[in-house]
Amino acid sequence: MASPSTTPLLKDELDIVIPTIRNLDFLEMWRPFFQPYHLIIVQDGDPSKTIKVPEGFDYELYNRNDINRILGPRSSCISFKDSACRCFGYMVSKKKYIYTIDDDCFVAKNPSGEDINALDQHIKNLLSPSTPFFFNTLYDPYREGADFVRGYPFSLREGVQTAVSHGLWLNIPDYDAPTQLVKPLERNARYVDAVLTIPKGTLFPMCGMNLAFDRELIGPAMYFGLMGDGQPIGRYDDMWAGWCVKVICDHLGLGVKTGLPYIWHSKASNPFVNLKKEYKGIFWQEEIIPFFQSAVLPKECTNVQKCYIELSKQVKAKLSKVDPYFDKLADAMVTWIEAWDELNPAGGSAKLANGSA
Amino acid sequence: MASPSTTPLLKDELDIVIPTIRNLDFLEMWRPFFQPYHLIIVQDGDPSKTIKVPEGFDYELYNRNDINRILGPRSSCISFKDSACRCFGYMVSKKKYIYTIDDDCFVAKNPSGEDINALDQHIKNLLSPSTPFFFNTLYDPYREGADFVRGYPFSLREGVQTAVSHGLWLNIPDYDAPTQLVKPLERNARYVDAVLTIPKGTLFPMCGMNLAFDRELIGPAMYFGLMGDGQPIGRYDDMWAGWCVKVICDHLGLGVKTGLPYIWHSKASNPFVNLKKEYKGIFWQEEIIPFFQSAVLPKECTNVQKCYIELSKQVKAKLSKVDPYFDKLADAMVTWIEAWDELNPAGGSAKLANGSA
Repeated sequence: MASPSTTPLLKDELDIVIPTIRNLDFLEMWRPFFQPYHLIIVQDGDPSKTIKVPEGFDYELYNRNDINRILGPRSSCISFKDSACRCFGYMVSKKKYIYTIDDDCFVAKNPSGEDINALDQHIKNLLSPSTPFFFNTLYDPYREGADFVRGYPFSLREGVQTAVSHGLWLNIPDYDAPTQLVKPLERNARYVDAVLTIPKGTLFPMCGMNLAFDRELIGPAMYFGLMGDGQPIGRYDDMWAGWCVKVICDHLGLGVKTGLPYIWHSKASNPFVNLKKEYKGIFWQEEIIPFFQSAVLPKECTNVQKCYIELSKQVKAKLSKVDPYFDKLADAMVTWIEAWDELNPAGGSAKLANGSA
Repeated sequence: MASPSTTPLLKDELDIVIPTIRNLDFLEMWRPFFQPYHLIIVQDGDPSKTIKVPEGFDYELYNRNDINRILGPRSSCISFKDSACRCFGYMVSKKKYIYTIDDDCFVAKNPSGEDINALDQHIKNLLSPSTPFFFNTLYDPYREGADFVRGYPFSLREGVQTAVSHGLWLNIPDYDAPTQLVKPLERNARYVDAVLTIPKGTLFPMCGMNLAFDRELIGPAMYFGLMGDGQPIGRYDDMWAGWCVKVICDHLGLGVKTGLPYIWHSKASNPFVNLKKEYKGIFWQEEIIPFFQSAVLPKECTNVQKCYIELSKQVKAKLSKVDPYFDKLADAMVTWIEAWDELNPAGGSAKLANGSA
């Protein structure tokens, strides 16, 4: 298929959302790639601490006080002392596309030794269609040098709009605490030169470390849940978003891609701390995933907000028995949509003119 | 996950099935890899022509006269003058695993310039489990240096038995005639270092050029249909098998993998000839694929044969309206199972002691 020979860089169409920056090298390393874009930094911890942003970046910074001021009582849906707070940045962005990345993720190199422009690949992924209804064995048929193989139905070759581009990680793989403990030295050195659509009906573990999405298409479903301070669970913020997003994309006929681009994940987080955050999730997910696998959204759910509210009702009805936490989470899902709609009255662009930058 | 450090070569457990050999270089090039194994050559055309097999190979060769003699009236289910006849080789094999390859496929090189031992990778794929119920973003979790990522349910980490290993092609991609005509110069130069499970509920275009499978697990579903001489269609033999196999694997809880290994596909077949063979398939598949996507097998179908007979009934009931060909094909599916069961009375190993070798 025709693949875009040059990718428009969408300088005015994409925001980069970063949940706090502890590492001063982080923005310096990404400067050649990130400087053209607007950054939204959502500080995840103590608002009295200041985050130093190097000269030359165009950014806005929100701390907990800003979130409380902007959302009022609805700020309860935004996690505190957890990188899950990043989703506040999705809500206040006024752009069509979001790229979110963790501050321990650096520029990776491709097998030829060249720096990988992760943003460029994410944009390519988002601007080309997805193929969720049938598997193409040569992976993304819209890439240069690739196409649909023999036996691929012609009626499906237009594909569908891509809502999510899920990138991967070289060096430290995104393992759970038990796997980290068992394999402390494992590093991901395998560069897989592929992008593929996750088929309709298949769930996947969406990692928020290196993730881009079309805010207009799927933004209101990118809620990272209640994690961190005062919550019984952590490290499931992106997973929760991924399950909801995939079910809603499948319902609305939108695509989710995974694969390229890689970033270099520099630092394994502490597996003991992770285990404490994760352990409830490890057994809860055994019930949550079957719940999402069997979730059906009615025809009346014609936009993301309606889908998300319906999903919140199903969470309340079916997951509250797992733990009272899910009752609270279901309420927070509704609050999130209320807050989203308040800040984004026209559906797409946020009402809020500016934050505290 | 633990990955096998050395792969048993299964010399006594695998047969290589080749539909005719027109190219004398073919076996010479594969000699280092194929010579330890038994070959089953199924001659697809004029039985009076002789196929020259170089010294040193252990093989049996079947031509049309042999097929007629062995199967009697049931030989009607085996295609003539078409490489679809290769499935006769699956039926007469007495081994657990089958590898099938076309005679225009040569040894490919990996990015380090080393010859790829395709058989070795297929065996690795077949001996390690599949993960059809949830997508692992780092691809095959059983490969060395890989594992299940954060958020992958622990209850699913044992995986399921792998029934099929679908390998890919460097150089000439497996395109349909319209794509060949439009992109005569396109070559596949992208080596994607991945093996992945095709998720449950997702169909794929299975190509027979470089394919391995577990005959005991899925053999009776590997019927390559009625193609070639006297039939209105060609080049859909492997596609037909792939649709049936995937639906049955999904029903029985078996896995299908695709990706590595690559072979070097040397020669594009004539697109004009291909178009003539394919053109009915190109519009029929628009109805066939939805049929297979919605096919449901009842609980009573507890083995491959029962599944396949049930599928033949559904083909007759639902696809005969597309073309009378499907009525004939549905009958041939039943004949195929009868022939399979006659030659393989104990389920697994073929009754037939030897062919005409």
